[in-house]
Amino acid sequence: MTMMKTQLTMPVLMDRGSILAPEVEIVSKMRDRTHRYTYADLGRRARRLADALTKLGVKQGDRVATFAWNGYRHLELYYALPCMGAVLHTLNLRLSAADLEYIINHAEDTVICVDDELLPLLERLAGKIPTVKHIIVMSNSGNKSSVLGPTLDYEELLEGGSEDFSWPEIDENAAMGLCYTSGTTGHPKGVMYTQRSNHLHTISGASIDCLGLSRSDVVMAVVPMFHANAWGLPYICCMMGAKQVFPGATMDGATICQLIQDEKVTFTAGVPTIWLGVMNELQNNPGKYDLSSLKTMLCGGSAPPRAMIDWFETNLGIEFVHAWGMTETSPLGCLNHLKPKMNDWSHEQRLDVKQRAGIVAPGLEIRIVDDAGNEVPHDGVAMGRLLIRGPWIASSYYKDPAPDKFPDGWLDTGDVATIDAEGYMAIADRSKDLVKSGGEWISSVDLENAIMAVPGVAEAAVIAVNHPKWQERPLACVVAKPGATVTKEEIYDYLGKNFAKWWMPDDIVFIESVPKTSVGKFDKKVLRNQFSDFTLPTAE
Amino acid sequence: MTMMKTQLTMPVLMDRGSILAPEVEIVSKMRDRTHRYTYADLGRRARRLADALTKLGVKQGDRVATFAWNGYRHLELYYALPCMGAVLHTLNLRLSAADLEYIINHAEDTVICVDDELLPLLERLAGKIPTVKHIIVMSNSGNKSSVLGPTLDYEELLEGGSEDFSWPEIDENAAMGLCYTSGTTGHPKGVMYTQRSNHLHTISGASIDCLGLSRSDVVMAVVPMFHANAWGLPYICCMMGAKQVFPGATMDGATICQLIQDEKVTFTAGVPTIWLGVMNELQNNPGKYDLSSLKTMLCGGSAPPRAMIDWFETNLGIEFVHAWGMTETSPLGCLNHLKPKMNDWSHEQRLDVKQRAGIVAPGLEIRIVDDAGNEVPHDGVAMGRLLIRGPWIASSYYKDPAPDKFPDGWLDTGDVATIDAEGYMAIADRSKDLVKSGGEWISSVDLENAIMAVPGVAEAAVIAVNHPKWQERPLACVVAKPGATVTKEEIYDYLGKNFAKWWMPDDIVFIESVPKTSVGKFDKKVLRNQFSDFTLPTAE
Repeated sequence: MTMMKTQLTMPVLMDRGSILAPEVEIVSKMRDRTHRYTYADLGRRARRLADALTKLGVKQGDRVATFAWNGYRHLELYYALPCMGAVLHTLNLRLSAADLEYIINHAEDTVICVDDELLPLLERLAGKIPTVKHIIVMSNSGNKSSVLGPTLDYEELLEGGSEDFSWPEIDENAAMGLCYTSGTTGHPKGVMYTQRSNHLHTISGASIDCLGLSRSDVVMAVVPMFHANAWGLPYICCMMGAKQVFPGATMDGATICQLIQDEKVTFTAGVPTIWLGVMNELQNNPGKYDLSSLKTMLCGGSAPPRAMIDWFETNLGIEFVHAWGMTETSPLGCLNHLKPKMNDWSHEQRLDVKQRAGIVAPGLEIRIVDDAGNEVPHDGVAMGRLLIRGPWIASSYYKDPAPDKFPDGWLDTGDVATIDAEGYMAIADRSKDLVKSGGEWISSVDLENAIMAVPGVAEAAVIAVNHPKWQERPLACVVAKPGATVTKEEIYDYLGKNFAKWWMPDDIVFIESVPKTSVGKFDKKVLRNQFSDFTLPTAE
Repeated sequence: MTMMKTQLTMPVLMDRGSILAPEVEIVSKMRDRTHRYTYADLGRRARRLADALTKLGVKQGDRVATFAWNGYRHLELYYALPCMGAVLHTLNLRLSAADLEYIINHAEDTVICVDDELLPLLERLAGKIPTVKHIIVMSNSGNKSSVLGPTLDYEELLEGGSEDFSWPEIDENAAMGLCYTSGTTGHPKGVMYTQRSNHLHTISGASIDCLGLSRSDVVMAVVPMFHANAWGLPYICCMMGAKQVFPGATMDGATICQLIQDEKVTFTAGVPTIWLGVMNELQNNPGKYDLSSLKTMLCGGSAPPRAMIDWFETNLGIEFVHAWGMTETSPLGCLNHLKPKMNDWSHEQRLDVKQRAGIVAPGLEIRIVDDAGNEVPHDGVAMGRLLIRGPWIASSYYKDPAPDKFPDGWLDTGDVATIDAEGYMAIADRSKDLVKSGGEWISSVDLENAIMAVPGVAEAAVIAVNHPKWQERPLACVVAKPGATVTKEEIYDYLGKNFAKWWMPDDIVFIESVPKTSVGKFDKKVLRNQFSDFTLPTAE
């Protein structure tokens, strides 16, 4: 051995910002005011917090949950818990009480740190979460009473902690973060990040082929910190000493635009819904905001509409980066940056590429395979199950191995994808939503996107229904916009111009609304149950 | 375990360019022509080479040496050897025959790949390197006869290899690269890089706080590929799919300028001597070159003169990045990028910072300590021994542990440094060249730099000589420029304006030239021997 076996842990990365950028600001929008402090403050308070939690009995490996919006205290927990060797368990605020109860008990959380305004959501679990010994309320109001029993005040707790707390030696394979996926089938499943996986995700995530962040950036994570590591942003920013801006609970277009302008945000990240809100705000108020500081808008969670990508790039002169990942991938998997040669391509050709999910992050590998496990051509057309491998990809679920998801050392993402000749991956469908017609695959997502482009259509979900000859055929479930009329013929007419004949849905039904999951995604399981006995018209 | 334990090896990084940027060029300037091919070609030829070397008997862990200038074949060796699990051992062309003999035998190299024009240098070792079974000549002339015995032709060898060669599974702690330091005392010492250390060096090295390279860059490594991983550039470029330009054997100012212009180089890296040559060429030929593509000039190996940093930044509008590292640090350790707030500083204040060696790379830690091992203040003035730690820092020398160099899990760099309040490190001296006067430290480098700024002075070396009262006192050995006259008084006069009285050399002697090591650094050991009995004048 001639090179150091220094452990790949979080303290060396997290402390870098407070050492090299002690005066750089961290700005948190609260309901009633804006909170500002510096990396030096953050570093001191993270140590106080770690010391106080240690005194409270939190040990290495213990799960400490957060139930909070994006803000400086949540960042302190992101900092202190991994660096002290405990596990940061981010609870999703949008889950049902039943799911939360299951998750907290499955994780055996010992402490929950909760924003005071979110306490009522947690109180639904009173008497049902026996492993939780302490509720710590992050309060701006001093209100601490709760049906959950005695609570601790976050600020009082910190006062009892020491700034001289030293991070312990931690093994790189120790657990450091826990996040549950909200699947539509079965119980939520936990992904347990390790020091090593997150260290590598942070370093690679900073590279120009991923987020390309530096000390000069001002970063606003609109993506909630209760989603997969907030896409790695809190960690990468602390490593780089980049100014951070947190929007708190209000994420409407006007608030986001105002924050970008006021704090001179250069980089922001969120789901398509957020950017739709921003686009609407800007379109409704031309000239109102100066967003000239903004350079990059990262968009993940689901595919952004082509027109929106185009609008932002054309009107704001920014790079709109479509990215793909999942809780199981930490989450940075693929990110869409154009290649230099594409500067010479036409606007539409560039948009064709930008709509795809992007190229694989440095350090990871992706493959697409058919049902027999054979590689599928990288021609942008052939669909295959998307497999991914690398040091920040899950190899099992926490206390729930699910080996089918992890064939031969790869993660089966559950997505069906294409990869084009330039290496850009695009999600075609969730594999369970794919329509398998006579051995050929039809993407429900492609059909839905096309149908939703027909005037008068508000939403469309395409599902597979059983077919005696073709095994499965597509059925389109369409919601019309309020007051609009739209006919089957209009939809078929539009689809006929864009798809092969055998892709055409065998029928189109009009419904009141598409059922949604707790996180707002189409819940096709409900639709499939509803239409399980549906008789398709005979086409031939 | 819930995250994959994917090994941190080189193939996943090296193949990324040939997968994602198959059409991007790799350009090599040869003596008689310019060679061009693509990443697709590189990937294919690297596999051919690995297959051919395997057939030749090269196994995992075997040391294969290179003796070559920068070019595409050297890059193929950089690619194939680590990916096949062998060890890339880069031999320094500038070493003496005795050192080369020692190094090849110590490393037990089994194969040496040599540029045909360099074969005569190697032939001095005929009969003295018994472990070497094969000499592979990288020839453009077809000449293969040698006193070393039968040789193989590189191109013929490749023709016998298969493009379908698959990289084997490799443990991340396996050896992958070997480079010997040319110390001034004792035998050269080998640093054995591992797959893990170089994987991490590559990923962190790409970040904006290090080299900040992307797919859009055109990178010219003027730093020889026989120096510490060519500063990581070949690996980082392959990971990013960045165009690479190799200058070959000719590295004069005119050639470098022409290549930057012709190939639209955006990023180049080399030692101060190279940039001095470029600056002279540009000053002597105003308007001759269009270097507008260039964005970054990286400078390491020794400290660049302040005036040169200023000249390049002012006249070319580029970022001149001073960096520090050593063979033992892979080598990226500290890199000098200004912080955003420094944009508001004065030109001279910015230059003060830019002269320093920079801030620590993400993933590493540095400390400065006194002789008792206590931390020294980070005030930019207090000097301490520079210690460094991290996953791409050596923990011992190859077959030569030298535990004194690695106290408590850190590498003692042998440098004495200061760190300022902003975290910027600056090398004050080699610890063995430091003058320890009455318990206080005097930097020989600072005095030398000052003396060399006196008109008429060509070179100056400051050494410690024994002193009955102060243990050591500085003696300045000065070389006058040809035809120039310079007096002790002029030098004392200049130093008096810049240094405290107790820093003044006790005497100044004029010598013909400063002795140099095989790599061109001042060899103060020779001077110290020469002046070991020197009697200092009594100052008081």
